[in-house]
Amino acid sequence: MTSPAPVVLAFLDPAYPDGRVADASKPQLLVTDLGVTRGDGVFETMLAVGGTVRKMQAHLDRLAGSAAALDLEIPDQQAWRRVIAAAVARHRLENPPADPAADELVVKLVVTRGVEGAPTPTAWVQATPAGAAGRRQRETGIDVILLDRGYDSDVADRAPWLLLGAKTLSYAVNMAALRHAHKQGADDVIFFSSDGRVLEGPTSTVLLAHVEKSDDGTTVKRLITPQLDSGILAGTSQGALFAAAKAAGWELGYGPLEPRDLMDADAVWLISSVRLLAPVNRIDGKEIGTPALQKELTAELGELFAGIQ
Amino acid sequence: MTSPAPVVLAFLDPAYPDGRVADASKPQLLVTDLGVTRGDGVFETMLAVGGTVRKMQAHLDRLAGSAAALDLEIPDQQAWRRVIAAAVARHRLENPPADPAADELVVKLVVTRGVEGAPTPTAWVQATPAGAAGRRQRETGIDVILLDRGYDSDVADRAPWLLLGAKTLSYAVNMAALRHAHKQGADDVIFFSSDGRVLEGPTSTVLLAHVEKSDDGTTVKRLITPQLDSGILAGTSQGALFAAAKAAGWELGYGPLEPRDLMDADAVWLISSVRLLAPVNRIDGKEIGTPALQKELTAELGELFAGIQ
Repeated sequence: MTSPAPVVLAFLDPAYPDGRVADASKPQLLVTDLGVTRGDGVFETMLAVGGTVRKMQAHLDRLAGSAAALDLEIPDQQAWRRVIAAAVARHRLENPPADPAADELVVKLVVTRGVEGAPTPTAWVQATPAGAAGRRQRETGIDVILLDRGYDSDVADRAPWLLLGAKTLSYAVNMAALRHAHKQGADDVIFFSSDGRVLEGPTSTVLLAHVEKSDDGTTVKRLITPQLDSGILAGTSQGALFAAAKAAGWELGYGPLEPRDLMDADAVWLISSVRLLAPVNRIDGKEIGTPALQKELTAELGELFAGIQ
Repeated sequence: MTSPAPVVLAFLDPAYPDGRVADASKPQLLVTDLGVTRGDGVFETMLAVGGTVRKMQAHLDRLAGSAAALDLEIPDQQAWRRVIAAAVARHRLENPPADPAADELVVKLVVTRGVEGAPTPTAWVQATPAGAAGRRQRETGIDVILLDRGYDSDVADRAPWLLLGAKTLSYAVNMAALRHAHKQGADDVIFFSSDGRVLEGPTSTVLLAHVEKSDDGTTVKRLITPQLDSGILAGTSQGALFAAAKAAGWELGYGPLEPRDLMDADAVWLISSVRLLAPVNRIDGKEIGTPALQKELTAELGELFAGIQ
């Protein structure tokens, strides 16, 4: 067994503008914290490359949006930025990256509603080295299965208490869906709605691409993702990649998508902040797209995505 | 401000058969525990009256069922029983109940999947005095609103990864629904399915009663609850009360129920292990049943329920 990965942990605390640094290997939370007793809180997972957090503003904005959906008052963005910067700097100082090509830190932001009856949330930043599993899946691709999410694609607007656009700590269903996939020998899941629309992965956004020759002989590349109002999480990675792809001449499209649209695509990916762009090789055992085109498109989009801040 | 309620906390730990007692006012959990980062775990909330836990076996069985739904290996029932008994005894020793009529402890059982990558779950028992709010609502009754749960009533069987029959730590939606009710001046919620069936409360089971004169002039009292296969939690309190009511001559019924069945009932209750039998005065602002009959039935069922172990 290898030694545990070095962690830097810092709580947001007005008395410590750069964060109250704490030992992550020691208990830091009360058992009565509503984060654990009720999964009542929100989080973000970000990637820092070479010491710089990617898409910081998009993550902070989504954290604020998730908190608003839960009526949760959280520290302001200036406070987060200071603690994040200090935590990343401390991690790199204490654990100088040996391999510049693998200089990646996972930076997690968590806010819980705090201890029952207490007036303040519990909020922290945690920085850990990125694992090898994500990098491997980017390169080899993944097999996914389709699973019913149980909700119809109109419910998010109708029933805001279902918190469908919020990234909450209540991820038990997402974790159960992943276990279900692993038992079947698959790596990941794409959820569909009860009315048959493609939604999202448990921890990622779905993308697909079509490459067509237009009438005048030029090649048209189109990048498509499910529409946001189907109750999915707004993907910070999808948003950033779409902007970069548009600038590079891609056409963009937004659902509704059905499972057969995935089957008919030239390539499908699950995109997320840490694993980045993971090409989908098979869905429910069926091969997707053509390997050569998938590889080419993955390389092109991967380069675009690597270039964003 | 009053001093915090005295808490007895004991972790399940093979090295301490009666539980490893810990200070609940001090941090006891790692920030990397999957209970807080993913709401990945299960729980039960029980009531001990005069030092005896009510419905212990039903709670332990449901905890085991919830854990099985999450593929979570948890300590065996013998281990739980020892730690529970020791925690309750310790609480009563350290805080002798001043008023025998209010000698109630809330006993919470929690199991999380433990720290990511670690082989063992984190499991604890927590005993605290029962608050006055539950007792008040039993007496005065509550106002509820109906809210869409987003799922249809067939999804539980079709999609076990949604964990619909399991009592998980991922309660953010239940908490959001309660906040939504409170903002509207209501006390609680009854969820209905997307296909219009009555389901359950966020932390309780729905009961309704009809009182009719039969052809031969005798009075028939019927107690009804939504059917279990609609994806609701099996209520330990509902189960115990049904058994007691049957023995006392009530007829029993199981859904499907629609919201209008609630509106037409002679009385409606939300039943749960700590608040016990809370009569519903209004649903979406409309008065339910008749106050005199509701009071009479609540007293009768309350007495039956108080008598169970």
